[in-house]
Formats: sequence, C-alpha cells, structure tokens
Amino acid sequence: MKNVKLTIAYDGTNYSGWQRQNNARTVQGVIEKKIRAITKQEIQIHGSGRTDAGVHALNQIASFTAEISIPTNKFAFVLNNALPSDIVIKEVEEMDMDFHARYSAKGKKYIYKIYNGVIRNPLYANYSYFVSKNIDVNKIIEASKYFIGEHDFKGFMSSGSNVKNTIRTIYNIDVYQKDEFIILEYKGNGFLYNMVRIITGSLLDVSSGKIMMENLDYIIKSKDRRNARHKAPPQGLYLAKVYY
Amino acid sequence: MKNVKLTIAYDGTNYSGWQRQNNARTVQGVIEKKIRAITKQEIQIHGSGRTDAGVHALNQIASFTAEISIPTNKFAFVLNNALPSDIVIKEVEEMDMDFHARYSAKGKKYIYKIYNGVIRNPLYANYSYFVSKNIDVNKIIEASKYFIGEHDFKGFMSSGSNVKNTIRTIYNIDVYQKDEFIILEYKGNGFLYNMVRIITGSLLDVSSGKIMMENLDYIIKSKDRRNARHKAPPQGLYLAKVYY
Repeated sequence: MKNVKLTIAYDGTNYSGWQRQNNARTVQGVIEKKIRAITKQEIQIHGSGRTDAGVHALNQIASFTAEISIPTNKFAFVLNNALPSDIVIKEVEEMDMDFHARYSAKGKKYIYKIYNGVIRNPLYANYSYFVSKNIDVNKIIEASKYFIGEHDFKGFMSSGSNVKNTIRTIYNIDVYQKDEFIILEYKGNGFLYNMVRIITGSLLDVSSGKIMMENLDYIIKSKDRRNARHKAPPQGLYLAKVYY
Repeated sequence: MKNVKLTIAYDGTNYSGWQRQNNARTVQGVIEKKIRAITKQEIQIHGSGRTDAGVHALNQIASFTAEISIPTNKFAFVLNNALPSDIVIKEVEEMDMDFHARYSAKGKKYIYKIYNGVIRNPLYANYSYFVSKNIDVNKIIEASKYFIGEHDFKGFMSSGSNVKNTIRTIYNIDVYQKDEFIILEYKGNGFLYNMVRIITGSLLDVSSGKIMMENLDYIIKSKDRRNARHKAPPQGLYLAKVYY
C-alpha cells in the first residue's frame, strides 16, 4: 500500500469546484474516476481543501492510498494522458503513511488577480476580476495591514461552512501591480470559506471609498459579515501553494 | 445611414470560428444577432477576414451599415452589455462610406504563442501551443528570415480556400522569449488560409531538426503543402491587428 501525494494544477472554469458531487463535474470527481480506472481500486482522494466553481489552482495538493506497482513518474504520465487538458498532475510523490493532504497542511498561499484595464478583456474574463475604475494600490497596501496577524475572521466567511474555530493567522499580504493587473498574494495558516474573496472585496471597497480605512479595525472586530458585503468573484482566485 | 467600424476582441475557445454558420455558434453570428436586436435592422457585418475555431482576436475589425441614431459610444455600451463575456467591442467608429473591413485592409499582424514549459499548464491550454521539448529560439529566428519578403506561399495554405493569387508579402517576423513562452509576431500584407500556423509549424520543425534549414528555400519554392506538414494548432493564434 502506498500513500501518494499529488500536486495538481487546474483551470476551474468548467468545473463545479473541487469537491466530489453526485450530479456535477468536479475536479476531485474527474481525478478520482481516472485513478480508479488506472488502479482498478475504489480509491478516494483527499484535497488540501475545497475550491469553489470557477476558482483555479496552481498547486492544489491531494493524497490517496492505493496499491500501485508502477513507478510514480510512470503513474503521473499515465494519469496525465487520461486527464482532460484543463487538469494537470504536476508531481506524484510517495509519502510516509501519516501524510494527509488536508490534516497535514500547515498553511496556504492564495493569489487574487484583478484586471484593472479600461475595457474588459475577453481573454482574461475567466481568469481575473475586471474592475475598470481607478484602484488606489497604496491605499490597498495600507488597508491590507489591518488583516495581517491573528484575528477572528468570522465576519469574512460565507455561510455554508460548519467550521467552529474562525480564528486564523494571515502572515502576509503582498499587493503589487503588473501591467494592467493588480495582484494580491495571501499567505496564512488557513483561510475560511470565501475569506480571501471577501477580504479582497473589502480592500477594493477601501480603495473606492465605500469603506473608510479607519473603520477596518471595527469591521474586523465586529465579526459581522454584513459589514463586509463585497465578495470578489471566483475567477480571479488561484490556490497557489499548500505548506506542510 | 452610417458606416460603422468595430474593433473586436474575443476568446475563440467556445466558438466555431468567426464566420457565420447556420448550425454553429460563431463570433460573427453572435455579434450580428445582437446588433440586429439593438438596431432592429437586418444588418450584416463584414470581418477583415475569418478566424478558425479556437483562434483568438485582440483587434479583429468588422464593418456594417445601418441607421443608428444614438452616439457611437452609447452604441458600444449597449452592444457590450448584450454580448457574452468572451466577446468585447473595444471601439466603435463612424467611417466614410467607402470603408470596408475586408476590402480596405492593407495588412495584418498575427501573434502565435508557444508555451515551452516542462509540463503542460492547464491555464494556458486554450491560449497557447504546448511544446515541451527544447526549442532553439536562435534557429527559429534564422529560419524565419527565409519567409520574409514576397513569396508564393501556396505550399503554406490549407485546402478549403478558393484564393487564386497565393503571393503574399511578409514584412517581418519577430521571435522572442517571454518567461516560458516563445512568441512569434507576423506582419504582412495578407495571409493565406492557415498560413501563420503552417509557417509556425515549419519553424518548430527546423528547431527540432525535422526540417533542415538549408531546405527551407526549396520547400517554399516547391509550393507543395506536403513539404510543410506541421500545422501549429489554433489555440496559440491571435489576430492582433488589421492595418488600413
């Protein structure tokens, strides 16, 4: 029996998110199906976490246990040949039996891409959030500092999650401009459901003046989602890295 | 009556190419339908040329005549609101009556994107040609010079075109590396059906040694498609500009 770690990239556009569903095409569902066909075993893969419909991954991690006789690089080759072009297995590694993609995870990095062009670009429609009005990057950088550190992020979580402990630590938020994009990179020990999208929406609301910078402290401490209404859309979000 | 010029960007992934077809969703078909709904006139739009299924456009040009009472910028706004997110009208201009998107065109610029990463990237699958083996950019630059100037490009045209004069002039082919991409920019007075894709395939064949550099002259002069078999796939191709 082997414990296998997969490093996976995917374009989330044509999937109903990561998690297996009975009546919808999901990334987990498609990968599981292919691995079952190859191994002829009823394996289940465990992702480091879910991603929503339309969200992308540069390095999602999943693990599963199975009897696999061929070398891991051969297995990666066979699996990639079976997968559609919008999912790629970047690496297959054999791990100690105590490794688990979700429970062993120590932290994550997410990237959020905002396309701040004058007019929407159809080639970026599924890969970024189009915001045409001026964005004050310095204001966003200043506002991002309020979120860094350990906070109860209950007010920045969508309903539909049954997580009990809503305290998380954000280590760092890098904000920078690259051509017509504004990119936010979040590193933390974990993120609540939709947390990156709601923080990004709030930062954009600070830029546009809908939220006053001096109210951010209160909004975070209020733990009330009604104070942070703007949830940036899924297509700008990328799960970039999982730390173990 | 106004003669209207449209500058259009589109993601060609989900279209059966530019040209109107009865039983397929095409870019021309979708735009025409929306303009007809807005103007309530049976207009026809004329593109600068066709693009194949999967080919993208940064600045396709089309023109049509209609009675339009609202200002062109208002018209652009209404039309863009009606169009799906993978088509955008970047500019609407009122032209002299003798302007015609196709017949007035003096030249075109195409961009071809090759993704030369180690492993295929699902986020680029619809937007580039994935070539994993080493590409010799200097060899491609040297080989590209054989194609510059006026030639009979009959051997670099797919069948299915009823063009009679197959002589075209390529002004310039810019080849450069950008991160993991190799990008080819073609400027010429016109391009035959699939000509950019077949030349790109041939340049890659020179890089890989399938075609010897010293045979290029012969291959071009032979005017025989069987000597240039490698047609690079559509998803790497972008119609970048039409010159008038």
